Amino acid sequence: MASKFEELINYRREIGNFDKACTLINWDMETATPKMGTDTMVEMMGALSTKAFEMRTSEKMEQLIDAVLEPSEFEQLDQYMQKAVKEMKKNFEENKRIPVEFHTEYTMHMAKAQEVWRTAKRENNYEAFKPYLEKNISYTKQLYAYIKGEGKGNYDSMLDDYERGMDMATIDKLFDELKEELIPLVKAIVSKPQPDRSKFTRSLDVNKQKEFSRYLLEYIGFDFDRGVMAESEHPFTTNIDRNDVRLTNHYYENDFLNAAFSIIHEGGHGIYEQNVHGRFEHTPLSECSYMGLHESQSRMFENVLGRNINFWKPVMPKFYELFPEMSDVTVEELYREVNRVQNGLVRIDSDEVTYCFHIILRYELEREMFNGNVSVDDLPKHWADKMEEYLGIRPETDAEGVMQDTHWSGGMFGYFPSYLLGSIYDGMFLEKIEEELGNVDTILAEGRIKDITKWLNEKIHTYGRYREPKEVIQAVCGKELSVKPLIKYFKEKYTDIYGL
Amino acid sequence: MASKFEELINYRREIGNFDKACTLINWDMETATPKMGTDTMVEMMGALSTKAFEMRTSEKMEQLIDAVLEPSEFEQLDQYMQKAVKEMKKNFEENKRIPVEFHTEYTMHMAKAQEVWRTAKRENNYEAFKPYLEKNISYTKQLYAYIKGEGKGNYDSMLDDYERGMDMATIDKLFDELKEELIPLVKAIVSKPQPDRSKFTRSLDVNKQKEFSRYLLEYIGFDFDRGVMAESEHPFTTNIDRNDVRLTNHYYENDFLNAAFSIIHEGGHGIYEQNVHGRFEHTPLSECSYMGLHESQSRMFENVLGRNINFWKPVMPKFYELFPEMSDVTVEELYREVNRVQNGLVRIDSDEVTYCFHIILRYELEREMFNGNVSVDDLPKHWADKMEEYLGIRPETDAEGVMQDTHWSGGMFGYFPSYLLGSIYDGMFLEKIEEELGNVDTILAEGRIKDITKWLNEKIHTYGRYREPKEVIQAVCGKELSVKPLIKYFKEKYTDIYGL
Repeated sequence: MASKFEELINYRREIGNFDKACTLINWDMETATPKMGTDTMVEMMGALSTKAFEMRTSEKMEQLIDAVLEPSEFEQLDQYMQKAVKEMKKNFEENKRIPVEFHTEYTMHMAKAQEVWRTAKRENNYEAFKPYLEKNISYTKQLYAYIKGEGKGNYDSMLDDYERGMDMATIDKLFDELKEELIPLVKAIVSKPQPDRSKFTRSLDVNKQKEFSRYLLEYIGFDFDRGVMAESEHPFTTNIDRNDVRLTNHYYENDFLNAAFSIIHEGGHGIYEQNVHGRFEHTPLSECSYMGLHESQSRMFENVLGRNINFWKPVMPKFYELFPEMSDVTVEELYREVNRVQNGLVRIDSDEVTYCFHIILRYELEREMFNGNVSVDDLPKHWADKMEEYLGIRPETDAEGVMQDTHWSGGMFGYFPSYLLGSIYDGMFLEKIEEELGNVDTILAEGRIKDITKWLNEKIHTYGRYREPKEVIQAVCGKELSVKPLIKYFKEKYTDIYGL
Repeated sequence: MASKFEELINYRREIGNFDKACTLINWDMETATPKMGTDTMVEMMGALSTKAFEMRTSEKMEQLIDAVLEPSEFEQLDQYMQKAVKEMKKNFEENKRIPVEFHTEYTMHMAKAQEVWRTAKRENNYEAFKPYLEKNISYTKQLYAYIKGEGKGNYDSMLDDYERGMDMATIDKLFDELKEELIPLVKAIVSKPQPDRSKFTRSLDVNKQKEFSRYLLEYIGFDFDRGVMAESEHPFTTNIDRNDVRLTNHYYENDFLNAAFSIIHEGGHGIYEQNVHGRFEHTPLSECSYMGLHESQSRMFENVLGRNINFWKPVMPKFYELFPEMSDVTVEELYREVNRVQNGLVRIDSDEVTYCFHIILRYELEREMFNGNVSVDDLPKHWADKMEEYLGIRPETDAEGVMQDTHWSGGMFGYFPSYLLGSIYDGMFLEKIEEELGNVDTILAEGRIKDITKWLNEKIHTYGRYREPKEVIQAVCGKELSVKPLIKYFKEKYTDIYGL
């Protein structure tokens, strides 16, 4: 006979089938669904997520969880599964407060809003997107009001939802410290001369770029037996489970570096998902939903490792083989190009350091939107003003301004800070890697990047979301979260590159 | 308030969401799922199809159908919706006899068996596939025994399931007439000299081939706003609904004609699905499940139109543009090559006329397997013997013999005859097209193939599966089914090409 715990896991596994089908529908909508097929997909998503939601909030679920929470059962579990069951209880309590009809409406609205955003962005038509954005905000407020109990949902709840333990007070402090150091650093950098970029805008065959993307993923340790790579407008990572992790990339004929770094970034996410311990499957511990921690992994590969000159040294032979027309590009030139610091309008095209301001801007706007100080009507103006304040430039269109990212179109408010938190964590992880594995430059130059991947697998990935972000920092680095290592990393790197 | 009929349709629409998710999972398994992700997909498929099956065979379904079958309700419906409801009743009765657990087991087993087949074929390992094939046969027997009522399921039931109204008696007669005429015809053809094929084995860029496939699909009238094209080992067509019709193709560097004709074939299936009348949605009339009729549409485009020299005349400029290395290929040479008749081992690589024997062989083996005269152990030998009898050749491996097709691996027994029935119908449709639209050579040469597509849309596609195959023949051609037009078409065509 199955134990109470096994019964619970089996029921969660059943629910998982419906959740996974929703993930698949979402993946398909981004990578395959034809234009006219969207409405049906949205309807399917609504039906399946409703079914999953009903099961997740059912009396049966409650009974199964509570049975395992009985001390006689609970004490038989190890610390991991105890944590898993506590998480289930927390999720159950939160979900139970959301009315089924609201959940269905919310899910279908968000799927539709993303579709509208896609077209509106293409046509630079903020007016078309605005009513959806407005609704996204009110739906999100309502969602968190339900989750936290009527009246208690606010922007802090959203931050906590994407990065457990984070709130405005903590983030304000971290980001303010960063601003103080980075505003003068960026000013100093951009006053320096820039290298010529013309070699890097040469037209390179898109299919060769795909091959190169695949090569890079394998090089950093992504497992294609348990993952796939496809194409979508905006690169992203999703997963059915740890054995089916899915990445996308996008390609521009005259900007191969865009695809290369996008895929290294997504690869970091994917490697995390692929390396969560197998025994966490069908439990919340397998759902790596702490997004700052997740972004620390993608940004570790993309920036800390990928923008190091030594990353490229062992990769150049493959690069020259695929792109013989680039045989006159030296690894030094490539390194300089991928570390060009320039004030630009678009987050995903920006360099490692000005990127921080793209995030701070979004964070501050979200915070003010949910605090009622910025309206959807005024959003483009506030956006432009902040861009000017931090980077000295203003967007000419909403497509390259307020509509550039997918997040708000899907109701992901509170996600943006994760990117920068990820970099802050990376500063700390980098120190620890050097302490434990030795000089990163040497490891990379010797083509041993997978040693670092393995270290990350063992120190971070395998735990899934067993540990909360602050616990991870403490466990891995043995100290409190601080922006100092990141600032040190930036200063050393750019002082060298730009001769400050 | 919704009418009884609307209530029924709404419920069917709900079920449809789960069915469509299964279609999507299946599509994904063929086009995207990584190797290690298969088991999870199979499990998802099991859960979702069980849910759909439970709804389809529920008391609620029965009550909804019966309520609409009440004369006071039924008489308010037009002939189409009356037929739709009668089909629902038939399907309900049949499904109700299948135990839910059997249905789940069956579905999951077949998904797994297809996966096993894929590997077994690649590794030419019939031993690995055999136990699955054996189980496929016994599961299929059991399935039809349930559907038709215990003890009544047999090979005739399967034939009827794939092509309503067909049985062994009818097919034996049609196929025997064909054999009588075609065995001497093929003998005469293959005794003649063959043209040189070397120009057609040149290496052509696979990405250009994809572009050409896309061009051909648009040329014949496939609508990419309501459809997509992807890649899979074996080309196929599926659809979420009429607004989301999905085709795949496969590509070989040294055999561009394979991809070109595969996609024209799948395009014919896809055009049928895209042009079923919109008001049939959520009813059985939108499910074009008469496979002979379906194959008549794919084979009309692939063979009757696609292997006509005049099809290619307006296409050649695009062909030369995409493949400048083929500029020395004349349209006459291309025409000759795509009508090369040769005794080959592989069905999907075979020409229009020897193809008939590939089908007759499979039909006869299926018939004897289900009649208990051929065992799975002996199958390869019987296969080889029949190949020798009809085409004078024997396969050297099971991969190019009994394991070459996907059908049996997925439990599709009774499907194969559909291909040849489709060609027989096409002989009759061709006569009628010429009567109503004029000379097909002229229409094609003038680049007006879409006139024929439109004729097929109006005469056949729009009706979905409202009319049964024999009714379609009667309604469109005004006469009984006969192999004579097909034989006449073959004789004229090959007499001309091979100078018989």
